[in-house]
Amino acid sequence: MTFLFNSDARRGAIFADAFAKELPDVPFTMDAATVDPDAVRYLITWTEPEDLARYSNLEILFSIGAGVDQFRLDTAPEQVKIVRTVEEGIVRMMQEYVTLAVLALHRNLPGYLAQQRAGEWRDIPQLQAGSRRLGVLGLGHLGQAVLDRLKPFSFPLAGWSRSPRRIEGVTCHHGERGLEEMLAASDILICLLPLTEETRGFLDADLFAKLPKGAALVHTGRGPQLDQEALVAALDSGHLSAAMIDVTDPEPLPADHPFWSHQKVILTPHVASVTQPATAARTVIENIRRHRAGLDPIGLVDRSRGY
Amino acid sequence: MTFLFNSDARRGAIFADAFAKELPDVPFTMDAATVDPDAVRYLITWTEPEDLARYSNLEILFSIGAGVDQFRLDTAPEQVKIVRTVEEGIVRMMQEYVTLAVLALHRNLPGYLAQQRAGEWRDIPQLQAGSRRLGVLGLGHLGQAVLDRLKPFSFPLAGWSRSPRRIEGVTCHHGERGLEEMLAASDILICLLPLTEETRGFLDADLFAKLPKGAALVHTGRGPQLDQEALVAALDSGHLSAAMIDVTDPEPLPADHPFWSHQKVILTPHVASVTQPATAARTVIENIRRHRAGLDPIGLVDRSRGY
Repeated sequence: MTFLFNSDARRGAIFADAFAKELPDVPFTMDAATVDPDAVRYLITWTEPEDLARYSNLEILFSIGAGVDQFRLDTAPEQVKIVRTVEEGIVRMMQEYVTLAVLALHRNLPGYLAQQRAGEWRDIPQLQAGSRRLGVLGLGHLGQAVLDRLKPFSFPLAGWSRSPRRIEGVTCHHGERGLEEMLAASDILICLLPLTEETRGFLDADLFAKLPKGAALVHTGRGPQLDQEALVAALDSGHLSAAMIDVTDPEPLPADHPFWSHQKVILTPHVASVTQPATAARTVIENIRRHRAGLDPIGLVDRSRGY
Repeated sequence: MTFLFNSDARRGAIFADAFAKELPDVPFTMDAATVDPDAVRYLITWTEPEDLARYSNLEILFSIGAGVDQFRLDTAPEQVKIVRTVEEGIVRMMQEYVTLAVLALHRNLPGYLAQQRAGEWRDIPQLQAGSRRLGVLGLGHLGQAVLDRLKPFSFPLAGWSRSPRRIEGVTCHHGERGLEEMLAASDILICLLPLTEETRGFLDADLFAKLPKGAALVHTGRGPQLDQEALVAALDSGHLSAAMIDVTDPEPLPADHPFWSHQKVILTPHVASVTQPATAARTVIENIRRHRAGLDPIGLVDRSRGY
């Protein structure tokens, strides 16, 4: 009934401590070379090991992050549960990053940074928060947590998801028609979607055209969801005003990519949110307890949806 | 019993509408040239008119902003009440700006902006919010409102004011000794102090030396509170890590000032918070009602303290 940890040793040491305290009856190892593969019931990793099939008694395959797009979901045997790790630390960091990005775009920071570099001291006309409509793509755990943090600022809030949701203080849209409605009323659009076949290339020229003139984008989903050329074109035409981008395709971007020097783009190197080992260990342990009690783990992936 | 409005006509029109609706018995004018000076009981302005003495029946001199440092507090006759305008709009904008600045410094935005310009894609080590201690200088209406907005992010919060305060969830310091204690434990220091003789030059080399190594500064008080050369020296020595600065001395800065190009400084042109005419008119009207009912207006200035 071994737990196999397949990631960096610094994080592993924190997990090992937590397991020793909280689940002493589950042997913990970071050594795939010497472990008895038949003993491994739980495996945590970022990318799937090539030899996943050797763990014939595997019950749960944990992703060490909030996404599972790096897994080929069809390679794990059907009875293996695939579980995403949406823990307190990753949620808190995403709340911080998106709040930072929304306020930076709301308060015209890209424009003020350009003015600073040009030595210009000049007001940029400022909308009040009550007139700046936010639209969040993706209303899972992260999307809801982000909306919760944005509530006190009195922006009008909306969100979109594939299936219907109800969230207090948020206008919830769903489906194709709901998407068009939300886009038309989003002055700042925030992408928190999981990467699936349906969301690949989602943020494209057609979608940008449906946003109001002057809208801005926060992208903290996954790189391949964004048509980067279409974004540059929309910024250069003036249809979109600015963007704060944390994920790209590829990562890192090539040296000649326009995002590096674009005055309307703030670029960060995929740092919006990172799994925190201490809180992640607690979440994984809680999920093993649930599993052993016959309950579904929190963050269980529906393989047909892809998230 | 006239109200004289001495500021720009666009704001004045919004005030005129509000007075017509809410205080129809108080004549409203923007025309100092034709008004009967003896009729003027209330005057709102940014700087004092040269001929303030001609309004012999003046009862309240309103500052159109949250500060009164632009007034010479001794020129108005003693019986004239001097009132600052701390209205909902200015409070909300300050909450936004300080939250933006704190999150930008917490999430290493100045460093990521420098990397973007240099074409570098690299993580910067990230403290978690629970280890990033915030210290707010000034615990008046704005300081408390800002702390309130920062609470959900789980930063350890502290504040300092001249006289003792109690604020739930905030470690409150006061006096000289309290200042030293707070500075020693502030990873991000936020200045919201009013400008008085005591706060002129407050943010100087001595004060910076009392902050922990690597601390950062948010300055949204008044320009003359900051020793700008001392800040540049503290940033260049590495003792301070970064600063977000909204107010300078002079404004605008001269063309060769180091803030324009400093990689550790984000500079905005005194836009953190601006009085919003619609909410300011409501606040002023409410204060006239209080005054006529024999109550002190909200924001009444204590001339001996200077704020």
